[in-house]
Amino acid sequence: KSIAILAGDGIGPEVTKQAIKCLDAVAEVFNHQFIYHEALIGAVAIDATGNPFPEATEKVCKTTDAILFGAIGHPKYDNDPSAKVRPEQGLLSMRKKLGLFANVRPVNSYEVLLSISPLKEEIIRGVDFVVFRELTGGIYFGEPRGRSEDGDKAFDTCVYSKHEIERIAHYAFQAAAKRRKKVTLVDKANVLATSRLWRETVTKLARQYPEIELDFMFVDNAAMKIIQNPKHFDVVLTENMFGDIITDEASVISGSLGMLPSASLGTRQSLFEPIHGSYPEVAGKNKANPIGSILSAAMLLEYAFQLHEESNLIQEAVEKSLDKGFTTEDIFKENAKTTEEVGDRIAS
Amino acid sequence: KSIAILAGDGIGPEVTKQAIKCLDAVAEVFNHQFIYHEALIGAVAIDATGNPFPEATEKVCKTTDAILFGAIGHPKYDNDPSAKVRPEQGLLSMRKKLGLFANVRPVNSYEVLLSISPLKEEIIRGVDFVVFRELTGGIYFGEPRGRSEDGDKAFDTCVYSKHEIERIAHYAFQAAAKRRKKVTLVDKANVLATSRLWRETVTKLARQYPEIELDFMFVDNAAMKIIQNPKHFDVVLTENMFGDIITDEASVISGSLGMLPSASLGTRQSLFEPIHGSYPEVAGKNKANPIGSILSAAMLLEYAFQLHEESNLIQEAVEKSLDKGFTTEDIFKENAKTTEEVGDRIAS
Ligand SMILES: CC(C)[C@H](C(=O)O)[C@@H](O)C(=O)O
Ligand SMILES: CC(C)[C@H](C(=O)O)[C@@H](O)C(=O)O
Repeated sequence: KSIAILAGDGIGPEVTKQAIKCLDAVAEVFNHQFIYHEALIGAVAIDATGNPFPEATEKVCKTTDAILFGAIGHPKYDNDPSAKVRPEQGLLSMRKKLGLFANVRPVNSYEVLLSISPLKEEIIRGVDFVVFRELTGGIYFGEPRGRSEDGDKAFDTCVYSKHEIERIAHYAFQAAAKRRKKVTLVDKANVLATSRLWRETVTKLARQYPEIELDFMFVDNAAMKIIQNPKHFDVVLTENMFGDIITDEASVISGSLGMLPSASLGTRQSLFEPIHGSYPEVAGKNKANPIGSILSAAMLLEYAFQLHEESNLIQEAVEKSLDKGFTTEDIFKENAKTTEEVGDRIAS
Repeated sequence: KSIAILAGDGIGPEVTKQAIKCLDAVAEVFNHQFIYHEALIGAVAIDATGNPFPEATEKVCKTTDAILFGAIGHPKYDNDPSAKVRPEQGLLSMRKKLGLFANVRPVNSYEVLLSISPLKEEIIRGVDFVVFRELTGGIYFGEPRGRSEDGDKAFDTCVYSKHEIERIAHYAFQAAAKRRKKVTLVDKANVLATSRLWRETVTKLARQYPEIELDFMFVDNAAMKIIQNPKHFDVVLTENMFGDIITDEASVISGSLGMLPSASLGTRQSLFEPIHGSYPEVAGKNKANPIGSILSAAMLLEYAFQLHEESNLIQEAVEKSLDKGFTTEDIFKENAKTTEEVGDRIAS
């Protein structure tokens, strides 16, 4: 099996390295062979080629069996959102070009991390839901977008077609079938025409999944409920912009951004990445938490290669090492381990 | 001074009644005269006239000095977002027709409520910020919006002009000048053209307020920070849709939706309302928390009539009654008081 490695910017390379260690460990135990193909993306790609998602990288992505992605972004592009070329464009154009339309983000609480979450223990103990965020449509890509001629007005367009809604909805319902059998569609159908199309389309499609309960929640209400009562949720299905907001919001439940993996699934290719950013303040210091990347590797085994046992093994190793308090400084400052140490421990 | 009373649906009438009691108490102590003009809005207005914001109501709103609003919404319109006439349309068309472009929502923590918030005490103790949400522009009102001819696609348009951004930005900076002198603009300038116009326009305007610090935050990051470190914020400035989401999210800090007031300011008229909805489950049961409405009356005195002392008096009475544990059942189940009892106590 071949895996594209897009380590990207900031802490991307160092955390991805730990994930590869874990993949190698799994390969050894189960007798698999994983072949890695490195390629450039983000600020490092701009520096090298002028393009945040170079054609060579696109080719690597299209000819491998799965993609492991690190992080993107560099301070020199921050606060300059109108710069001609920006690292984030690489991310967006990769999603679009590879058709990665379904972003999947599990949200769990870890017993040992209960104390570092801003939420009370009784709220988060036992939380276990997953968000399916549409990733290649909506206001992120809709046309027209830009400025009026006199520069006085700006506009963006949010567009969705039934097909775009259906394909991710099927993924969400299929996931719910293997879980607690509940899908919550998050939208703003009391205001937006696109949200009404989501509601209509998903309601119709739900008839194919009679065992799954479907409920609806306005996004403002969902933003409250995720904090007040996160155990309410099993599978959350939502459009691109709302998903961007509520997945980041939900990440506070676990107590550390550094912990959380994600998958971006398409029809032909899929990509796996920690949800954290490039975190330039710590880059190169051997301090970043590699668990988000390591759990992304676990998701890769599960979703891209259907290697369930292998995937579980990584997850168990992560939990064991957490239970022993073997963590980087973002989790427990005292006795903090380095990125390498945590990676080695989990891999071993 | 004349005040339009739009009690609306569900618990609207019963909580508004308590707010009026408090206004009357203030009038007596300070020797003011408030004249109330009742008018219909929402589901009750649809039932009576077919229109959720009837012309008669519009006229009352335009000829009074301020508006006290209750709540809007009725279950018979829920899950039917495509119904021809819906109560929420009344709310949106009122905002637009009266030009209520700046929604102001204070977010505070109350010592006695720390225990009922889903967040840990150390996170929320001392939180004190205010959100300025643009209310008459953006994706709520932009054209074109609707369906493609074949019904396969839906679209919404987000539009902003410099003028729309400037007028609310001035309010936000003026508020910051009286507070801790910090404005955080929440946007998605790494993706949206409208957000880039916000950033550009607000950056330019900030030069008129050299004593105010301006910083920027992407909305996904803000959705995390509001929970992780709400003390970071002083004045938050944002567009309509993002404001809808983050104000509701921020409301969890106080522990109860029932507590929070809001103001919607325009150039000629202003409206004051609790942020909670019509809460039909409890309507007519004398159980709803009237404090959101009572504090809205306090905001009315402050913002519409510049009656600072009078406004403070109401706020102090609310705090006293909270400190004594004199609350409705949404706050403390044990020994819960009725809506009327809480209203009487605060007014007295
Ligand atoms: C970097 C940015 C464009 C991106 C997004 O908004 O999708 C990020 O926030 C994410 O969620 O992956
Ligand atoms: C009822 C709805 C249209 C409204 C909005 O989205 O503005 C509400 O959520 C609010 O925040 O006042």
